Amino acid sequence: MSKHIRPWYRLLALAIASMVFAVFAPTTVQAVDPPTVQSLSETTTKLQISIDTIWVLITGFLVFFMQTGFAMLEAGLIRQKGVVNVLLENFIDAAVTILVWWGIGFGIAFGTSAGGLVGIDNFFLSQLPGADGSYTLGAPGSTAAINTYTLFFFQFAFAATASTITTGSMAGRTDFIGDLIYSGIMGAISYPIIVHWVWNSGGWLAKLSYHDFAGSSVVHTVGGWTALVGAYLLGSRPGRPGWGRLPPAHNLGLATLGTMILWFGWYGFNPGSTLSTGNPGLIGLVTVNTTLSAGAGALSALIFQYTRTGKWHLVYSLNGSLAGLVAITAPCAYVLPWASVLIGLTGGILVTLGVDLIESLHIDDPVGAFAVHGINGMMGTLSVGFLGQGELTLNKKAGLFLGGGFDLLGIQLLGVVAIAVFTIGFSFLMFGGLKALGHLRVHPEGDRIGIDFYEHGASVWPDVYAIEQFIEEEDKNSTQTPGFGALDSE
Amino acid sequence: MSKHIRPWYRLLALAIASMVFAVFAPTTVQAVDPPTVQSLSETTTKLQISIDTIWVLITGFLVFFMQTGFAMLEAGLIRQKGVVNVLLENFIDAAVTILVWWGIGFGIAFGTSAGGLVGIDNFFLSQLPGADGSYTLGAPGSTAAINTYTLFFFQFAFAATASTITTGSMAGRTDFIGDLIYSGIMGAISYPIIVHWVWNSGGWLAKLSYHDFAGSSVVHTVGGWTALVGAYLLGSRPGRPGWGRLPPAHNLGLATLGTMILWFGWYGFNPGSTLSTGNPGLIGLVTVNTTLSAGAGALSALIFQYTRTGKWHLVYSLNGSLAGLVAITAPCAYVLPWASVLIGLTGGILVTLGVDLIESLHIDDPVGAFAVHGINGMMGTLSVGFLGQGELTLNKKAGLFLGGGFDLLGIQLLGVVAIAVFTIGFSFLMFGGLKALGHLRVHPEGDRIGIDFYEHGASVWPDVYAIEQFIEEEDKNSTQTPGFGALDSE
Amino acid sequence: MSKHIRPWYRLLALAIASMVFAVFAPTTVQAVDPPTVQSLSETTTKLQISIDTIWVLITGFLVFFMQTGFAMLEAGLIRQKGVVNVLLENFIDAAVTILVWWGIGFGIAFGTSAGGLVGIDNFFLSQLPGADGSYTLGAPGSTAAINTYTLFFFQFAFAATASTITTGSMAGRTDFIGDLIYSGIMGAISYPIIVHWVWNSGGWLAKLSYHDFAGSSVVHTVGGWTALVGAYLLGSRPGRPGWGRLPPAHNLGLATLGTMILWFGWYGFNPGSTLSTGNPGLIGLVTVNTTLSAGAGALSALIFQYTRTGKWHLVYSLNGSLAGLVAITAPCAYVLPWASVLIGLTGGILVTLGVDLIESLHIDDPVGAFAVHGINGMMGTLSVGFLGQGELTLNKKAGLFLGGGFDLLGIQLLGVVAIAVFTIGFSFLMFGGLKALGHLRVHPEGDRIGIDFYEHGASVWPDVYAIEQFIEEEDKNSTQTPGFGALDSE
Repeated sequence: MSKHIRPWYRLLALAIASMVFAVFAPTTVQAVDPPTVQSLSETTTKLQISIDTIWVLITGFLVFFMQTGFAMLEAGLIRQKGVVNVLLENFIDAAVTILVWWGIGFGIAFGTSAGGLVGIDNFFLSQLPGADGSYTLGAPGSTAAINTYTLFFFQFAFAATASTITTGSMAGRTDFIGDLIYSGIMGAISYPIIVHWVWNSGGWLAKLSYHDFAGSSVVHTVGGWTALVGAYLLGSRPGRPGWGRLPPAHNLGLATLGTMILWFGWYGFNPGSTLSTGNPGLIGLVTVNTTLSAGAGALSALIFQYTRTGKWHLVYSLNGSLAGLVAITAPCAYVLPWASVLIGLTGGILVTLGVDLIESLHIDDPVGAFAVHGINGMMGTLSVGFLGQGELTLNKKAGLFLGGGFDLLGIQLLGVVAIAVFTIGFSFLMFGGLKALGHLRVHPEGDRIGIDFYEHGASVWPDVYAIEQFIEEEDKNSTQTPGFGALDSE
Repeated sequence: MSKHIRPWYRLLALAIASMVFAVFAPTTVQAVDPPTVQSLSETTTKLQISIDTIWVLITGFLVFFMQTGFAMLEAGLIRQKGVVNVLLENFIDAAVTILVWWGIGFGIAFGTSAGGLVGIDNFFLSQLPGADGSYTLGAPGSTAAINTYTLFFFQFAFAATASTITTGSMAGRTDFIGDLIYSGIMGAISYPIIVHWVWNSGGWLAKLSYHDFAGSSVVHTVGGWTALVGAYLLGSRPGRPGWGRLPPAHNLGLATLGTMILWFGWYGFNPGSTLSTGNPGLIGLVTVNTTLSAGAGALSALIFQYTRTGKWHLVYSLNGSLAGLVAITAPCAYVLPWASVLIGLTGGILVTLGVDLIESLHIDDPVGAFAVHGINGMMGTLSVGFLGQGELTLNKKAGLFLGGGFDLLGIQLLGVVAIAVFTIGFSFLMFGGLKALGHLRVHPEGDRIGIDFYEHGASVWPDVYAIEQFIEEEDKNSTQTPGFGALDSE
Repeated sequence: MSKHIRPWYRLLALAIASMVFAVFAPTTVQAVDPPTVQSLSETTTKLQISIDTIWVLITGFLVFFMQTGFAMLEAGLIRQKGVVNVLLENFIDAAVTILVWWGIGFGIAFGTSAGGLVGIDNFFLSQLPGADGSYTLGAPGSTAAINTYTLFFFQFAFAATASTITTGSMAGRTDFIGDLIYSGIMGAISYPIIVHWVWNSGGWLAKLSYHDFAGSSVVHTVGGWTALVGAYLLGSRPGRPGWGRLPPAHNLGLATLGTMILWFGWYGFNPGSTLSTGNPGLIGLVTVNTTLSAGAGALSALIFQYTRTGKWHLVYSLNGSLAGLVAITAPCAYVLPWASVLIGLTGGILVTLGVDLIESLHIDDPVGAFAVHGINGMMGTLSVGFLGQGELTLNKKAGLFLGGGFDLLGIQLLGVVAIAVFTIGFSFLMFGGLKALGHLRVHPEGDRIGIDFYEHGASVWPDVYAIEQFIEEEDKNSTQTPGFGALDSE
């Protein structure tokens, strides 16, 4: 007899292994009947679903990790007295969002559409299968081959990103109860409505072939506009020195760590938004475009700022890469690599000018959230209208610069404006309401003694704080030395 | 002729590409014969194994990354003088564990069962195939479709987690040789024995349909009980101030980073424990449950502590999310989302009360390891007995609150108690032995000058340390100012 | 009628779902015709490509994350005055590399081979398909089943690693324009040439069955030799104290974080280098070997240094794990676990002695880059020649210690020497040119006031810096206390 193990034996061995394995995962489907074309066809369908599911989940994990990136970036960029506050805001944002996304947000975003404007069912994941064991496939109404739980999680991670963007511009002086409330409202209502418009197949912008592959407008301009309105209504941080120059980042190690985690997480954000692995070339293209734009943005911001100041600014370069990432998020599946480089280079310049612009308006945005997410979210979304590749776009139309005329650009512009108008209006209502309730700005005592002590009873690095307190005390008792406070004037 | 590439041509092209590709990965199986139903059936089996393998490996990588999370969390929560010690303990723990897991632990956990109590073969991966080239499938006796190497790695990452939990409660005053020894013993013997009971198909608890999907009891209560016994036998840190209030965390940036990495890594821990992708809906459910419980725990701890102190405590919220994560680890595949929210809310309260309890017993657990991992590990394991969903549990029985009676709960309670009794007894022997050998507590000189200097000859941020030394010196020579030492009294 | 959903119905439902799904991802392939053996065979081929693609991309994301690890490690190991510089160098390195890799590097590495020495086409991804929609499969000439975009990204992440290794040894005193230029040249020319030799199927070393699975020599010795030449030509950091003892790491928290991220990222580096999931057992073996060697290296360096100094050195243990990881990178697919342990143990000793050696030569390598990457890259590559397992190597030859004679070892030695000679020569030309242009060493003013202020106008933690400035000032005005500067003498 041949030494080769015969195929039937191997199949049998596997079937037995599967059965033993079932002790651990009893819902695993067992195949013991002889295979037929029919059964194999079902098997390949199941395999495709398995692959798509783990792809969407793993990339969703990476998107979730971006929450860590935002926390570290914002903690690094602001002044020391508000770091505990910003850490907790970014952290608790994930907790608030998952609960409201479960109760309300997911239903509004992906429930049955009412007139293309808003979803009206599947709150609390109510349409999920119960006792019939049908956990395997998507729930009724699901628009994806992946199951509803998987889509729910992936989209939750995006929702958390949107509201955490806003914390950055409002860092250092927001009432903490106000923070909990607005995070909840964004995750439950304002962000999901925009998702419904664009990513629900019944949404009105989706029906117009509006292009936003992974959320330059859906996630980033919603976060960015809300951030701008919030920062405007809040007023500036206490002791904010003269305009035109942001106070120095207090910990560039954390800021760099945060940005690099964000770039890493973006490989979940953009490639994962394929929601499927059926087109591997497209996933590869999205990944390459994302990288090229991030790199181009980092370099153009660095060099542009060097030409203006003679210094190689780390923070501008970090924000430049984020600008490139935000901008490429909408077009990453619709343009070719050379266009991604252009988009990234533009992003790096725009974020630099954008920070200047917001400063010149005397709006205190400590991390440049609007410049990064708002301005570049819009630029990126519009870039599809200019640089979209005919064979890649949803409706096979090319962008203006590629000879496709204004069709694509017009819809992109319509979407960007509609989202801006809705979000700005909503934000004024939301933050205005909080202001009326006395929960927008932290209590004046918090401004005086520092928000970390007032709200959280803690200091991020108490040893350094203790040293500073000692020196300030020393300073009062001494006339020998120049004041220490000068460098940390806020 | 048609412009469409004909299927045969494409297949041929792929076959050629595969052959070229074989230069890099020569063991890749090449399919050049015409496909048959039989060959396709084998192909789909192989594809399933490939998908399962990369799922288990990638989630295993995430679990491994939790080691980084523990290192950062513990380094952030303790006082500055012991940070180098805690960093090295968490880091070297992975190194010690991989070596003892290879030599002993994996065999005890997954070797052939002796009476359901302990594995007795496959030490040093001795059953792995050698020269016959059969590296593809699982080794004889493997209970999974994934190969032995993959299972070995995934389970190693869990083993490393168990012993690193213990370092937290024993931080700041453990003899370093003692640390190396107990880490080795836990990875080689005590943890693998519990794994054998629960996750080896021959284990006595496995045969009773004990439910612990990803290790609330196997990993977390083993780590937690060992941590408690260790902290008890060690005594408190030098200069520990009055009980009832833990000394302040010295670096909340690191603590937040660590917790967020842990949450991220938990997406390997729980979803990866499916060990298969055959049921994508289950993976999705596990992921969603994990997230809901983490979020609910973070919020309930935050709000509960606010009602008690009027402050929004970052550290309690961090520990609340970990409590929710620990608790949902056992039931994540057996309950529905609403139950996960309940479990998380409970976890957030329990961890807060648990820290109080341990403090009231005058046991010094610097990071709250027992409250997080011990108490919530037990609660989560028992929650299957209360909230288990009949169509999801291994034996199709529902929990007590869902009308399933006491059957499920009884077995869960039996398991929790058995694991506690064994682990507590083992820990007293192990740490008692170390104490007898003079290797449990660091040398008194280490307590006096700081464990970092004594054991490691280093300071974690020497600049800050140098400043503190300077000020202390200054202080002695001056009567003008209040003592700096007050804030850093240990 | 049966309550079971009939297969045809399910398939139909899926087809409909796919069509709806196509709104979001229109390029997804739809299968609506009745399946045949032929169509199923194509389907399984596509599935294999999907699996391989997501495997290579996800592991590529992990490799990219190593950039973060290098940034944190180097930022932690050097002195405080150069941290901004080293953060920006590590960050911008990714940006520079992606652009030059796109324009030049990828073509040189994977373009059509000219005599086995260098690639001569596919610059700017020029061979990518355009309007014909064939984005799915690999471009002509591709050596992998994965598409060109995916290979491009994966290999970009490796290229970024190579040049970022070099930043470590040159930290703290390199002209920033010089840094940008050499990073660009390495990513465009010197690194891709070596890649071509080894990993392009037409490369001269590839044809000789040279074994370097994931780049011990290709990535790490190229980075290491360039690092050594750079550090030699630069001269030492300003105020470098006596030789034989590196200045203390200024932030061991960051250094540990960085190393642990690197270890985590290595699970992309080595297992991902299979470039295929066709052999799951091999992927598992590679993963296990990687872990064992890392752990053995961490332990042997720790214990070796303990025997020499009586202290448990964190930094040596970190570098020991990296040494083990670097060393196992070439042989991880060709040796068994026991051999990986040996290789790791050797690496931990060699890195310790290597740091001494470089110090004794009075070359200032602040992070031990050559000892880690150069020495252990060579050792690891040669280890295939000693410990290679006959049934695992490319040409089925065993290593010297396993009775295979000198065949394998000879080729390995040839490759190691050839790469060293080329890289050293190239580096002297490259850095010599920069020196001639006045862009190698930072301006003397940068040495005087600190490179962070001179080049970047920033301090990494301005609060700590402000305190130090205050104390220094205080010091001048006082004769009461010993100088603070002593501990931070540079």
